[in-house]
Amino acid sequence: MTKPEPTAEILCIGTELLLGSITNGNARWIAEQLAALGVAHLRQEVVGDNQARVMAAVRAAAGRCRVLITTGGLGPTPDDLTTEAIAAAFDTPLVEHPEVWADIEAKLAQRGRVATPSLRKQALLPEGAAVLPNPTGSAPGLIWTPPSAEGFREGFTILTFPGVPSEMQAMWLATAAPWLAQSGLAAGVLASRMLRFWGVPESTLAEQMADLLEGTNPTVAPYAGAGAVKLRITARGADQVSALALLAPVEAEIRARTGQLCYGADADSLASVVLEQLRARGETLAVAESCTGGGIGAALAAVPGASEVFVGGVIAYANRVKQGLLGVPAELLEAHGAVSDPVAQAMAEGARRLTGATWAIAVSGVAGPGGGTPEKPVGLVHIAIAGPTGVASEAVRFGASRGRAWIQTLTAGEALNRLRLNLEPGSPEPSE
Amino acid sequence: MTKPEPTAEILCIGTELLLGSITNGNARWIAEQLAALGVAHLRQEVVGDNQARVMAAVRAAAGRCRVLITTGGLGPTPDDLTTEAIAAAFDTPLVEHPEVWADIEAKLAQRGRVATPSLRKQALLPEGAAVLPNPTGSAPGLIWTPPSAEGFREGFTILTFPGVPSEMQAMWLATAAPWLAQSGLAAGVLASRMLRFWGVPESTLAEQMADLLEGTNPTVAPYAGAGAVKLRITARGADQVSALALLAPVEAEIRARTGQLCYGADADSLASVVLEQLRARGETLAVAESCTGGGIGAALAAVPGASEVFVGGVIAYANRVKQGLLGVPAELLEAHGAVSDPVAQAMAEGARRLTGATWAIAVSGVAGPGGGTPEKPVGLVHIAIAGPTGVASEAVRFGASRGRAWIQTLTAGEALNRLRLNLEPGSPEPSE
Repeated sequence: MTKPEPTAEILCIGTELLLGSITNGNARWIAEQLAALGVAHLRQEVVGDNQARVMAAVRAAAGRCRVLITTGGLGPTPDDLTTEAIAAAFDTPLVEHPEVWADIEAKLAQRGRVATPSLRKQALLPEGAAVLPNPTGSAPGLIWTPPSAEGFREGFTILTFPGVPSEMQAMWLATAAPWLAQSGLAAGVLASRMLRFWGVPESTLAEQMADLLEGTNPTVAPYAGAGAVKLRITARGADQVSALALLAPVEAEIRARTGQLCYGADADSLASVVLEQLRARGETLAVAESCTGGGIGAALAAVPGASEVFVGGVIAYANRVKQGLLGVPAELLEAHGAVSDPVAQAMAEGARRLTGATWAIAVSGVAGPGGGTPEKPVGLVHIAIAGPTGVASEAVRFGASRGRAWIQTLTAGEALNRLRLNLEPGSPEPSE
Repeated sequence: MTKPEPTAEILCIGTELLLGSITNGNARWIAEQLAALGVAHLRQEVVGDNQARVMAAVRAAAGRCRVLITTGGLGPTPDDLTTEAIAAAFDTPLVEHPEVWADIEAKLAQRGRVATPSLRKQALLPEGAAVLPNPTGSAPGLIWTPPSAEGFREGFTILTFPGVPSEMQAMWLATAAPWLAQSGLAAGVLASRMLRFWGVPESTLAEQMADLLEGTNPTVAPYAGAGAVKLRITARGADQVSALALLAPVEAEIRARTGQLCYGADADSLASVVLEQLRARGETLAVAESCTGGGIGAALAAVPGASEVFVGGVIAYANRVKQGLLGVPAELLEAHGAVSDPVAQAMAEGARRLTGATWAIAVSGVAGPGGGTPEKPVGLVHIAIAGPTGVASEAVRFGASRGRAWIQTLTAGEALNRLRLNLEPGSPEPSE
């Protein structure tokens, strides 16, 4: 037996990754989680749906790391062969878990389906392996320490996950993360906080935090997404209390430096923060969406309990809907065009009037790729907010280079962020 | 010397990948390029900026594949150590290439900068390596067949690229792709087609295609996403024409077996297919969304050119918006509840009447996690379609287990798919 090295590796299994059909978002997500847990992660590998290559990869990992995390290949089709390959890699027979099969049958029955024989292989695990439950999908994973052998790391353990990101993430958070936290792979206890920012480039934020980024406990690391930027603070302590005591002053320092740029932490979204602000005030919100086509409403509706605050609104994609439903005057559309401050303001006021909501957000812009002109290029969006004391709007330019989906996502985020800033204590109420 | 195996591997070098700070888009891009060139690609690996681990990864690859493609670690900072590690892996000294250094100096001068000594390491390559020019950035890559040795594949060759995607891609297209095309690695040319399905579980589709999944040319492979299922057909031929000739009959066979379950191919989405059906008929579409909050509209608006067909609609999240804007009678809401066929039908008719659209889709359901009852559990959604000849609706049960976002996504897909089927030639028009 080789001396244990307390590290984790990720093995992603799927021919679609080798064909370039999909991006390996799972590897990134798991890597971020391992970093947050303080588990050292030195290597990732991708192989296709090929039993011999999966077996070789698993056996090689057994000689290098303490924990191997796999994704993919747990489904019911013939090319789903991860579990078989792992069992074969350690010469271990597969045994059926009746409780897993019962769970699969129950989940299918809920959706009005009958379990077919091909699904049965999802209930098979190598002898000695424990089930890693899949609360949202049918195929469970496993947690297994295979029989030790010459050349393998002591205590080498495999955790398997399906390739569907939502299932993998739910399983990770419910079972794998707690298991890893107490696995002894991480020295001490980690406390972590993800602070979320809108309206500041990652590089600017990183420069402002240069001294903190060099810290070792807590560590501070920047992440960039679509419009949003995040800073993860991770502190390690003997216990949760001492880890949090190290974390708190750094969080306070970052919040003091960034002020209103920081909109929330951890699971917050711009939509959830706005809904919470309005809930606390006993107020409601409507939307009037042109270029986003419903994306702002969908972001609000994604938050559980949104219906207390979000009443709905109008998707005014065509000008005749802006006129007919929202009551935008034809003269305004003719004089200024649909992508203009007067029309965005009339849309917001119309949505507020129609629904009786306290606040309304309206957006009208050129999402592209067509429809741009020199005066109103692709990426130009007018965002209006109507509230109890009036309406205000502004033009925002997101540029054409990143494409339609990016412009629509940024528009929704920017509109929600503007309402958030309006609702912050001390902010001026909008007025014309 | 081991017999050559004509395969390629990708090795991505960068600690930021292991920390989850960025997604490995380079691996996907290169994988897609290799597939298009017909180069077999069986493995990807990621390691951090660590000389020993890069050396180990390179030496292991030399024993397995014919071409190793690396990304990252070519810059001027101390953690850029790919070239040194590769040279050390094969006990080869580094030599300076004066023409590379002159090129770096010239590029910096163009930007008004002076070349500092730390940049000089970018002009070093292992003895015997050729320069892989970097037309857009400063750090070049290399093409190198290291001295052969016991256990290495005959003709094993390394190509290195920087981690910056735009530089890597420009270098690939200018130099690496032509080199690979004539390398003898590609047996013929690949043609690929992704067929897209709605309303059939992956396992059922795989069972129907069991014989085709065993084929070797073309290969057929299933993929599952959120509600959507895909089959990728990949054929290899001497040239594009013969590859397509092999692919076409398999595509025709799959389409014949699956009928209307197959909604499109490649970049098609349910929204883009519905918009195209309606565009061909010169008809328009509106939405009335409750539980999706705008998600159907956002899916339609995501398609470039949607505005020719999609006019907009109403997000009727609160009941008073269902009543006030869509004209759903209070009696219906009281007698049947918002989540019911009569209300969904009245919503669809209201959206059609308000917007003047030819068709309207309406959805009303319980997205959860709260709000479920024994009669109307989480996951129950009523979907209505109103058209020129009437309105029809149906209850669909998605189950509670996969959560709110999943139910919202499936609801949007299912609603669009029902309209698609309504618009297929020979489908009965909806009527009460």
